[in-house]
Amino acid sequence: MTVDLILIGFGNVGRRFVGLLDEQRTMLARRYGISTRIVGIATRHGQVFSARGVDVAKVRLDTSADTLTFLQDALSKSRVAARERRLVVVETTTLDVKRGEPAVRYIRAALSAKAHVITANKGPVACAYAALRRAAERADRRWLFEGVVMDGVPIFNLARETLPAVKILGFRGVVNSTTNFMLTAMERGRSFDDALAEMQAIGIAEADASLDVDGWDAAAKTAALANVLLGAQLMPAQVERQGIARETAARAVEAMSRGRRLKLVARASRQERGVTARVSPEELASDDPLAQLEGQQNAIILSTDLLGEIAIVQRGGGLTQTAYALLADLVTIARSITSGAAIPRSRPRARRG
Amino acid sequence: MTVDLILIGFGNVGRRFVGLLDEQRTMLARRYGISTRIVGIATRHGQVFSARGVDVAKVRLDTSADTLTFLQDALSKSRVAARERRLVVVETTTLDVKRGEPAVRYIRAALSAKAHVITANKGPVACAYAALRRAAERADRRWLFEGVVMDGVPIFNLARETLPAVKILGFRGVVNSTTNFMLTAMERGRSFDDALAEMQAIGIAEADASLDVDGWDAAAKTAALANVLLGAQLMPAQVERQGIARETAARAVEAMSRGRRLKLVARASRQERGVTARVSPEELASDDPLAQLEGQQNAIILSTDLLGEIAIVQRGGGLTQTAYALLADLVTIARSITSGAAIPRSRPRARRG
Repeated sequence: MTVDLILIGFGNVGRRFVGLLDEQRTMLARRYGISTRIVGIATRHGQVFSARGVDVAKVRLDTSADTLTFLQDALSKSRVAARERRLVVVETTTLDVKRGEPAVRYIRAALSAKAHVITANKGPVACAYAALRRAAERADRRWLFEGVVMDGVPIFNLARETLPAVKILGFRGVVNSTTNFMLTAMERGRSFDDALAEMQAIGIAEADASLDVDGWDAAAKTAALANVLLGAQLMPAQVERQGIARETAARAVEAMSRGRRLKLVARASRQERGVTARVSPEELASDDPLAQLEGQQNAIILSTDLLGEIAIVQRGGGLTQTAYALLADLVTIARSITSGAAIPRSRPRARRG
Repeated sequence: MTVDLILIGFGNVGRRFVGLLDEQRTMLARRYGISTRIVGIATRHGQVFSARGVDVAKVRLDTSADTLTFLQDALSKSRVAARERRLVVVETTTLDVKRGEPAVRYIRAALSAKAHVITANKGPVACAYAALRRAAERADRRWLFEGVVMDGVPIFNLARETLPAVKILGFRGVVNSTTNFMLTAMERGRSFDDALAEMQAIGIAEADASLDVDGWDAAAKTAALANVLLGAQLMPAQVERQGIARETAARAVEAMSRGRRLKLVARASRQERGVTARVSPEELASDDPLAQLEGQQNAIILSTDLLGEIAIVQRGGGLTQTAYALLADLVTIARSITSGAAIPRSRPRARRG
C-alpha cells in the first residue's frame, strides 16, 4: 500500500524525516507492507504539488498561494487517497507558543478532509488538544504527535498503549535541553550570557532565546503533557512559569556547594479543582533521578495509582530523534490501516474514573 | 462482553490479580466494555470449575485430577468462549528456571484450545519464547507476559507498541530486587548473611535464595528480554552468570570508598554471531543511571539505532504491580477482541533487517 504524504513545513525536521523515510524504505516495506510518496510540500518560500509524487531533490517551489489555500487544494486533489485512509499530512511548521497557530488551522483542514495528521510541533497539542482530538474522532482519522516532548522517546505512546489500566496522577520532569545545558555550565562557573551564547552557537537554543530561558518551551511541553496525560485543558500561558536568568547562576553554584543540583523542573498534578502545572528552577537532592541529567538528557517521572512512579529517560536527543518520532507515528497509522482496526476513541476523562 | 478466565496457579499474585479485577470492575466495564468471570482455578492443592463462574471467596477445591488434565477438561468445557475469542488462561505457577515446565505445557495446551494466555511466570518466556510465540500465531490468539520483568512497568509493550521503527541493539539493567537491596546493605557494612536474612524476613527474597543470589532470576529475565527484544534463542543456563556471595561485601565497600557502586548488572547485545548475554556484579561510576538505583528500584537501558539510549526506571515494585501487569495484558486482549484487529504477526527477525 502506498501512503501519500503532504508536508506542511520543510525545515530541518521535515528534511531529516524525508531522509529517514528513504533510509528505512526496505524496513517499511518488509515489516509493515507500505511505501510512501510525497505528493505535496509547503514551505514559507513556496509550494509544490504532484499527485504522482514530488522528487524532493529536484523540487521547484511555486509561490502563488498562501499555505492554507495550497493545503486545501492539495487535500482536494488527494480525495481518493483520503477516502482510502492512506493520506497523511505531516505538520512541522514553527512553534507559536501562545495560540498554536497557524498549525491548528492546518490540522483542522487536514482532518476535515479525512487525512491523518502527524506533527512534531508542540503548539497544537499545548493550545488546542481537546478540540483537535474531537476533530480527529469526528473524522475517524488519527492525529499523532509523539515528537512533541522528548523527541522520539515514546512518552505519549507509553501512556496510551502500555498503561491501559493505570491512572496517571501527575508528573515531573526536565524537558528543555537548552536550560539544562546552561544550568550545568553555570554550576561550573560559566556566566548566563556565555552559556547561552554557546548554546546558540552549537544550534541547540531556539533562535528566540526567551522561548528557552523564560520557560516558554517547557511550559508548552508541560501543557501538552497535562492535556494528554491528565485530561487538563491548559494553555501554555496558564502554566505557572519561572525561567532562568543571570541571577540563577549564583543559585546554581550555591546549590552545588551543598551537593544539590538546580534544575528547571516541569510538573503537573491532578488536584481537587483540576490540574495545576508549573515550570520553575527547583533545587534537587543529588539522588533525585532528575538531578543526574546532564546536557541534552531529558526525563519524565510519571506518578501512577497502581504502578507507583515510572521514569523514562532520554539519554540522547537531536534532529534524527525528532524525525524518528514522525516515522513512528506514520508506522502507527500504517498498522491501523492494514489491521483494519477502528480508531481508538478518547478515554472517558480519567478524572471521572 | 464477558471474558472467561481459567486461573492456573493461585498464589499471592493470582489472588492479588483477582482482587484487582474486582477493584477495577467499573473501569473495565466503562472504558473497555468488558466484564470478567472466573470459570476455573487450579492450584497445587486442588481444582474447581464452573461454566457459570466460580465464587472465589467460597471456592472448594477438588483434588481428583492433575493440573494438566484439569486444564484440558476446563478448556474443552469452555469451547464456546474460546471460539468467540473471549477465553483467557492466566498462568501464575512457580518458576522453573531450567526448563520453564510445567508452565510451557499448560500454555501450549491453552493455545491449542484457542484460549489467549497471560502469564506472570518468567520461565516460559526465558525457556520457550520462540516456540510459544509460533504456537500463539498458529492459534491466532495472544500470549502476553508483561509482568515477567520489572513487574508492571511496560518494557515489552514499550518495545512492541511504541518503538515500531527502531532496532534495539542491546540492553543493560538491574532487574533483581533482592541482590540490589543486599548490595546496598553490604556497602553500608552489613554482612552477606545478615542482608540475605533480612530480605527473606520481609518476604522479598525467593524462598530458594540461590535463585536470587546466584543470579538465576536475573539470568531468566535476561534470557526473556534477549529472546523478545533481540530475537535471541537463549535459555537461562546459556546466560553467562556470576551472582553475589560473601566475598562480594568487601568488594562493594571498597568500590563505595572510591565513589563507585557495585551492582548486579544484566546485559545482552547483538553481535556478529548472534546475541551474547551476561549477568555479573559490575562496578559503575556514580553518575551511571544504574548506579543510583536503591532497594527495590529496577531499570533497563535500551540501546537503539535511531533513538540512542532510552532508560525506563521502576521506582516502586511489589505484588500489586505484578498483578497489574496481568490486568494490563487482559486489557490488551480485550481491546483486540473489541476492535476486531488481527493478531500481530512476529516481526521478521530484526537481525536480518
